[in-house]
Amino acid sequence: MFEYYEKEALHPSEKYVRINYLDLMKLVSTIFRTLSVVEKDADTVADVIVTADLMGISSHGIQRLRRYVDGIRTGNVNVKSEMKVVEDHKAVALIDADNGLGQVAASKGMNLAIKKAETYGIGLVLVRNSNHFGIAGYYSLMATGKGLIGVTLTNSENLVAYTNTLGPTLGTNPIAVGIPRECPPPILFDAATSVVPVGKIELYRKLGRQIPEGWVMDEHGRMISGDASRIHRKIKEDKAAILPLGGVGEEFGGHKGSGLSFLVDIISGVLSGSSWGTHVGYTVADKPAGVGHTLIALDVEAFMPKDKFFSRVQEYVQEIKSTSKHPKADRIWIPGEKAWLTKETRIKMGIPVSGAVYEDLKKLVDELKIRWILDQKT
Amino acid sequence: MFEYYEKEALHPSEKYVRINYLDLMKLVSTIFRTLSVVEKDADTVADVIVTADLMGISSHGIQRLRRYVDGIRTGNVNVKSEMKVVEDHKAVALIDADNGLGQVAASKGMNLAIKKAETYGIGLVLVRNSNHFGIAGYYSLMATGKGLIGVTLTNSENLVAYTNTLGPTLGTNPIAVGIPRECPPPILFDAATSVVPVGKIELYRKLGRQIPEGWVMDEHGRMISGDASRIHRKIKEDKAAILPLGGVGEEFGGHKGSGLSFLVDIISGVLSGSSWGTHVGYTVADKPAGVGHTLIALDVEAFMPKDKFFSRVQEYVQEIKSTSKHPKADRIWIPGEKAWLTKETRIKMGIPVSGAVYEDLKKLVDELKIRWILDQKT
Repeated sequence: MFEYYEKEALHPSEKYVRINYLDLMKLVSTIFRTLSVVEKDADTVADVIVTADLMGISSHGIQRLRRYVDGIRTGNVNVKSEMKVVEDHKAVALIDADNGLGQVAASKGMNLAIKKAETYGIGLVLVRNSNHFGIAGYYSLMATGKGLIGVTLTNSENLVAYTNTLGPTLGTNPIAVGIPRECPPPILFDAATSVVPVGKIELYRKLGRQIPEGWVMDEHGRMISGDASRIHRKIKEDKAAILPLGGVGEEFGGHKGSGLSFLVDIISGVLSGSSWGTHVGYTVADKPAGVGHTLIALDVEAFMPKDKFFSRVQEYVQEIKSTSKHPKADRIWIPGEKAWLTKETRIKMGIPVSGAVYEDLKKLVDELKIRWILDQKT
Repeated sequence: MFEYYEKEALHPSEKYVRINYLDLMKLVSTIFRTLSVVEKDADTVADVIVTADLMGISSHGIQRLRRYVDGIRTGNVNVKSEMKVVEDHKAVALIDADNGLGQVAASKGMNLAIKKAETYGIGLVLVRNSNHFGIAGYYSLMATGKGLIGVTLTNSENLVAYTNTLGPTLGTNPIAVGIPRECPPPILFDAATSVVPVGKIELYRKLGRQIPEGWVMDEHGRMISGDASRIHRKIKEDKAAILPLGGVGEEFGGHKGSGLSFLVDIISGVLSGSSWGTHVGYTVADKPAGVGHTLIALDVEAFMPKDKFFSRVQEYVQEIKSTSKHPKADRIWIPGEKAWLTKETRIKMGIPVSGAVYEDLKKLVDELKIRWILDQKT
C-alpha cells in the first residue's frame, strides 16, 4: 500500500525537479570517482548522501555535497587514506580512518561490529581520525538489514552550548538506534542531542520560516528567535549556540541533552583517540577534522528467537498506534516511520531537488568535466 | 578539600535529623533480613537504597523503603527467587530474576557484564522478570569502580506520554552512564528520559513548590501546572502523564525523549523477554512487575591505556569548567558532581531524614520487632 508522504515541507514558491534516485546515486558516485575515490568507496558515499535525500533529510543530502567535495579538493580529506584496524580485542575494535571519508570509515566500522556481534553477541567498534559521515541512521540500518540492532554515535563540530555555559562547546552529537522488524519499516531513532540539528535551522532559513524561542541563544545567553537567516549567520560566526535537548538550564532537562552530547563525545572522541568538543574540526578547514564515531551491533538471537522478538515489537508498536491521539497531533508516529514513507515516496516519484541545488550540481559536474546524466522526472 | 553541598533543597520548616549512613545501612539491611532476605542480598538492597539518600536522591532512598517492604510482605516480590543465567553467549547474557529484588538482580547483571567486558572488551547483560531496582546510577558506578565504563537502563511502570498521544504509555525509563576518572568523582549521568522523574514531583509536593508548565499534561492533553499535590494525585490516578524530555509534540524535541524511552524499553523489556510499556507493574500489586534491565560494561583498556584515557577526560572536564558561565547559572557542573558532593557532605554530617520518614521508619522497625539502632547525629 503506497502512501504519498513528504517528511520535509517543500518551499511552495521554489521550483523543484524530481530526480530518479538511482541516476542521482550514479552521478554522485561518478563525482567522487573523478576526485580519485575508488569505485567501491565512491558508491558508499553516494549511497549515504542520496539515502539522506530519499529519507527527507535534505540537509544531509546532495545539498551538502560541496562540503565533501571541497574537503577533498583542498586536501583536508584524504582520499588515499589507509584505514586500519589498530586495536582488535574479541568483541571490540578501533579503526584509524587516516583522515579519510567518514562514510567509508563508518561503514567499515559497522560491518566489523556486525561480524563481531554474530560471533560474540555484541560488537562495538570505535573510529578515530575520521570526517563527517552524513546521517547516523544509515549505519544503524546496516545492522537492521542483517536482523541486528544497530547503534551509531558520532561527535561533530561544536555548535551546542553545554548547560550553564555560553558559546558552542559540544557538537550536535547524534544518537541513532535501529531495531529490526519483520516487515518494514525498521524502527529508526536518529536524533541530534541538541534541541534541533543545525540542518533544521538551515531548512527554516530556506523555507523563510521563523525560529521559535528556545532553540538558540546568543553569546550573552539570551534566547534569540525569529529570522532564520540572521540566526543561522550568528551560529556560523560562533556568536550563537544551539541549545541542548531540554533547553536552557536544568528546569526542563537541558542538562540531560547536554550530558548525552558530552557522553557521545567521550566514547566517540575521547576513548577513540580522536578530537573532542571544540577541537573537532569542519570538513573544509586547514586541519584534519578528527571526528570520532561509535558503531555497535547487537544480536537479537542471543536473547530470543528472531520471530518472537519481531512479534513482541509488533505488539508494542500496535499498542502505541492504538493509544488515544493528542488533539493537536496529526498522527502517532513510530521513530523512523516518516523517513521511511518519504523514502518510498521518493523512490517512486523521484527526489525533489530545488532549483539552486540543481544548478549547483550542474556547475560542479561542469567543473569536473563529467557527463550530465540526470533526466528530470516530471 | 571538603565542600558542604546539598543537591536537594531541604524543606526549611520541616524537622530533619541527621543519621549516620552506616547505621542506616545496617538498619535497612536488618529490615530485609527480617523479611527473609539472605544477608548478602539484604546488604546489597540496603546499599542501593542508602546510597540514593547519600547522593541526595531521597525519592529513591529510605522514603521508598515501604514500597520494597510491602512488595515482599504481600508476596508480590519473591525473596526466595532463584535467579538464573538463562542465556549466555560470549559477551552477552540474559538473567531471569524469578521476580526477585531488582537491586539484587541488577547487581548480579552488572557483575556479569564486568566479567565479560574484562574478557571480551564489552559485556551486555539483560535481566527479565525483575522489580524496581532503585537508582540506575548505582550499577554504572559498579563498573567505574573497576575502571570500566558502565551503562544501565531499565524500564519502569508507565507514567510518561508517548509523543502525540494522551495518557501514560512509557516509563520514565532512565539512562545511567558512568565514566571512570583517575580521581573522584567519576562522571555519572543518571537521568530519566522524561522531562523530570516522578521523584522530582514528589519532592516538589513535599517542599510545597509549584510545578512549572511543561512537565505534566492532563488526560485531555492540556498542560497542568501549579500545586504539586494535586498534580501528583492526578498522576497516581492515571489522569495525568509526565511529558518526555523535550516536552509536548516535536517542536522542542519531545519525540526524542519519547523515542529514547521507547528504545530503553525495547532493549530492557521486549528483548529481555520481560514486560513493556503499560504492562510493567508496580512493586506492590497483584501481579509480578516484570521489570527488565540492561547492564553494560566497556573496557577502556581495549582502546587505550587507562592513564591516557584519564588524562584526556581530565582535559575535557577542565575545558568545560573554564568555559564562560551563563549569567543566570550558579556554576558549571559535570554530570554526577552534585551527587558526589552531596554524598561527601552526608557521609561526614549524616543523612538528613525528615521527621515523617524518621517516624515511619521507627514504626516499621516496631512492626518487625527489630531493635532500634539509630542515634541522631546532632
